[in-house]
Amino acid sequence: MSRSDESAAHSLLAGLAARPGVHALQRRFAEDAARVERFSWEAPGVHADASKQPWDAEIFDGLVRYARAQGMEQGIAALFAGERVNTTEERAALHVALRAPAQATFAADGEPVMGPIVQQRARVRDFVSEVHTGRRRGHTGAPFTAVVHLGIGGSELGPHLVCAALRGQHRSGLDVRFVSNLGAGALDEALEGLRPEQTLFIVASKTFTTAETLQLAGTARQWLAQGVGSEGSAAHFAAVTAAPEKAAAFGIAPDACFELWDWVGGRYSLWSTVGALPSSLALGSSAVEALRRGAAAMDEHFRTRPLERNLPVVLALLRLWQGRYLGQRVQVVVPYDHRLRLLPAHLQQVDMESLGKRVRRDGSEAAGPTGPALLGQPGTTAQHAFFQALHQGTDVLPVEFIAVAEGPAAYRAHHEVLLANCLAQSMALMCGKSAAAAEAELLAAGVAPDRAARLAAHRSFPGERPSTTLALRSLEAESLGALLALYEHRVYAESLLYGINAFDQYGVELGKQLASSLVGAVRGEAPPPEADPSTRGLLRWLTQARSTEPR
Amino acid sequence: MSRSDESAAHSLLAGLAARPGVHALQRRFAEDAARVERFSWEAPGVHADASKQPWDAEIFDGLVRYARAQGMEQGIAALFAGERVNTTEERAALHVALRAPAQATFAADGEPVMGPIVQQRARVRDFVSEVHTGRRRGHTGAPFTAVVHLGIGGSELGPHLVCAALRGQHRSGLDVRFVSNLGAGALDEALEGLRPEQTLFIVASKTFTTAETLQLAGTARQWLAQGVGSEGSAAHFAAVTAAPEKAAAFGIAPDACFELWDWVGGRYSLWSTVGALPSSLALGSSAVEALRRGAAAMDEHFRTRPLERNLPVVLALLRLWQGRYLGQRVQVVVPYDHRLRLLPAHLQQVDMESLGKRVRRDGSEAAGPTGPALLGQPGTTAQHAFFQALHQGTDVLPVEFIAVAEGPAAYRAHHEVLLANCLAQSMALMCGKSAAAAEAELLAAGVAPDRAARLAAHRSFPGERPSTTLALRSLEAESLGALLALYEHRVYAESLLYGINAFDQYGVELGKQLASSLVGAVRGEAPPPEADPSTRGLLRWLTQARSTEPR
Repeated sequence: MSRSDESAAHSLLAGLAARPGVHALQRRFAEDAARVERFSWEAPGVHADASKQPWDAEIFDGLVRYARAQGMEQGIAALFAGERVNTTEERAALHVALRAPAQATFAADGEPVMGPIVQQRARVRDFVSEVHTGRRRGHTGAPFTAVVHLGIGGSELGPHLVCAALRGQHRSGLDVRFVSNLGAGALDEALEGLRPEQTLFIVASKTFTTAETLQLAGTARQWLAQGVGSEGSAAHFAAVTAAPEKAAAFGIAPDACFELWDWVGGRYSLWSTVGALPSSLALGSSAVEALRRGAAAMDEHFRTRPLERNLPVVLALLRLWQGRYLGQRVQVVVPYDHRLRLLPAHLQQVDMESLGKRVRRDGSEAAGPTGPALLGQPGTTAQHAFFQALHQGTDVLPVEFIAVAEGPAAYRAHHEVLLANCLAQSMALMCGKSAAAAEAELLAAGVAPDRAARLAAHRSFPGERPSTTLALRSLEAESLGALLALYEHRVYAESLLYGINAFDQYGVELGKQLASSLVGAVRGEAPPPEADPSTRGLLRWLTQARSTEPR
Repeated sequence: MSRSDESAAHSLLAGLAARPGVHALQRRFAEDAARVERFSWEAPGVHADASKQPWDAEIFDGLVRYARAQGMEQGIAALFAGERVNTTEERAALHVALRAPAQATFAADGEPVMGPIVQQRARVRDFVSEVHTGRRRGHTGAPFTAVVHLGIGGSELGPHLVCAALRGQHRSGLDVRFVSNLGAGALDEALEGLRPEQTLFIVASKTFTTAETLQLAGTARQWLAQGVGSEGSAAHFAAVTAAPEKAAAFGIAPDACFELWDWVGGRYSLWSTVGALPSSLALGSSAVEALRRGAAAMDEHFRTRPLERNLPVVLALLRLWQGRYLGQRVQVVVPYDHRLRLLPAHLQQVDMESLGKRVRRDGSEAAGPTGPALLGQPGTTAQHAFFQALHQGTDVLPVEFIAVAEGPAAYRAHHEVLLANCLAQSMALMCGKSAAAAEAELLAAGVAPDRAARLAAHRSFPGERPSTTLALRSLEAESLGALLALYEHRVYAESLLYGINAFDQYGVELGKQLASSLVGAVRGEAPPPEADPSTRGLLRWLTQARSTEPR
């Protein structure tokens, strides 16, 4: 790649974005009979239609050229070669190895990794089988009936999503619950109806120092002690960590401690033992194997397809176009499937933690905006919440719809309504309704002419609002794995376009540092640390409110 | 108000926004020792500090002037007077009456409304008491142990939030669950572990034609029939609707049918019988009365305080400043309390459905952007998800933090950590960390000089990022009511600033229309309707995928 190629591609794109009528979508369909085919892609498990986006062949070619100038092909190869693509932390990012078949040959810094991965997979499978068959039991000899997974961020979002999405199809009989939040009641709620004698906790923390997770684990141990005594609680814990010595110090037995590697980023934890352990306990090991197969198929697509037919790459190109050239800084994600209700929260992390960076790999300022803000809710719930703003607000918020062709047989009629709504929304956003059409409709419905004239503007829709639809044949472990891998690779491809490192998250450090300096003051055990006047004022207000509050 | 006043105020604000250094926050504290007091407000139940926002006395005065020019005072008076502030639908918006004390004297179009409101309150209270005491039972004579509330949008979000926030403090013994989504498994999950004989369903739909809710109700009736026979299911339904004849046609008894009025917007349903019924069943009637008292106190604040000391108004002024003058089009909401975890989803509706408009009350185009996009998750979970982008991303995303001084006694230590984190985040966002400071820290930690120099930019924080903190003494029914009313009034005040109608939602209609025209085609029972090529292509792909999917 060269800076001059990059700059030429950038100038071309900036020029195309400034052309009048760039946002006109409907006209583009009229002008190009092959538009749907041109802007639709097939990838393992996923069909994508981005023809309702404000681009054309010339823009697309310019974006591909920009990608080449930014070294997209080399960047993809480097990821799979186990190079140190995590440039600041100076290590590989080998989540693709975590879902690769056993015979694959990934290496981190020249060190083969598949051996240890396959070994941990076997350990998880054996442990899960012991729990499921009752060979592993609680301290009192009662079999486990419930699992409570303690973890936050990537240690919770991905695994929780997988369990919620697939629990209708795969049931082990174990009730697996997730707790991430320290807040009042989060753990209480998760423990409702559970018996300490039959509950297994998983403590998932790469460093085994995550403040929230360790505090929850401590409270969980007190709860267990009520049922099995403080001596007995050890039999009720498993851990997933890169710091087994710290887990051992907490009292977790080595045979219930599973390994993580430092080249697994938190946002990719769902593919590691962090995800495999709770998901296998909840869904069975074969579901988790199918999830991996689906992701591996998407990995192969990403690794081998030319840029123009490479779905993660083209979706990243679209993001660059939207965010940098068209100023669309928000991405809305709406899965029309209740089983994917946790996907938006997962993607907030995958996207915003990876791409919320303003410094390039070489330490220079990014040349323009990087990743968008992301929000979403499942459809049709979202239609009744914020879709008003999508259709008639002042800002253009591009939407990504997710449709699943075949729903579960028991909810066939419900699912058909969801599909019709999903299609209708992308159509309504693009096609809109003119004030004249709105007025004619009102008149036809018998509304008085003066009122119809007054209401027409309010009942009109500007249209020309963009969306992409991702369609899956059905939602099972394999297609879910492919979908999740697609999003991860889009993020990596985007990071190459922006020139940033997708794999660090130094932005979370300062708040953590300051929080530990403030906790003593909140507890009234230490004087307030140096802080700005507003923070000092808030600390004072909160402290006074606490001391005057009736207990 | 006059257009020339508005235009003068606008020019003043645009000039202030263009001044260099407008985003510099820290300097402003150095220049004004009274800054925290100047930009902090007290309202019933809520303390607000917006001193970490990019405004000063001159900007604030300009904003107040703009508000006066837009008729803010008259607009507030009109709301409470029951005038037709919902201009397109030509009716009042009297959610304030729904929470007013019985002796209040609200009227809609001159018609007193407190009589009917008080009557419905009494009906809900009596019904709830009958269920709680076992005087009202299921068809087989077994007492009700669970309630499943079927409703979508405002019929779900607010009531669900209230129940989730207060269930730790108020328990009736009934297990109250909410279902909004048609999607596969949503109803199944809600019914897990429930017995038809002991389950009561609430069907909440103003029109009693909401497609999703009615379809769910039909499926619920089939489920009930398994336990109590199809004749017996009527005893297991209650309804909240403005169309009692339709509820009766569905088979719901008049004594289990509660009234709604057309002047209650969906986003305000939580104050009506839609909210009162499930909340009282879950929490007891006195909790719901306290919720109303808290809201009524905030109503009184909003109605009577001068603009400069009126919290909903000043928060609306801030939104105008951020969104129209500083180009900050996203609002992030982070409550540091697990009990408020559903607040961001509720606010997405309250904000985006009310303010996602591009046409003013008089039918003209809005003069600039209106309401922001809103996203949020509870802290600290959110810190581990998207805070990276807040601290180090390219875009400035203003945050609203919510802190609750006193957490439940059982989780005191957990809660203190949350408070420390909440304070630390607003401080970190504003104060940042320079590259030099980051480098010095790395060197002090023993990092090699060349690596420290390379990492410094990545580990630095630009700072000067804005936030507001809302602080509550404790979270109980009364303060929650005040907080929710605060947000509603901010939205109304904002709508006056933008000149739009906050109370309609015509933007949701087109998608509904198109969905009903598409559902036959999805089912394969009708030919595809006229549609754009992309929508036709997606319909074809989905239909083929459905017919080839193994069943």
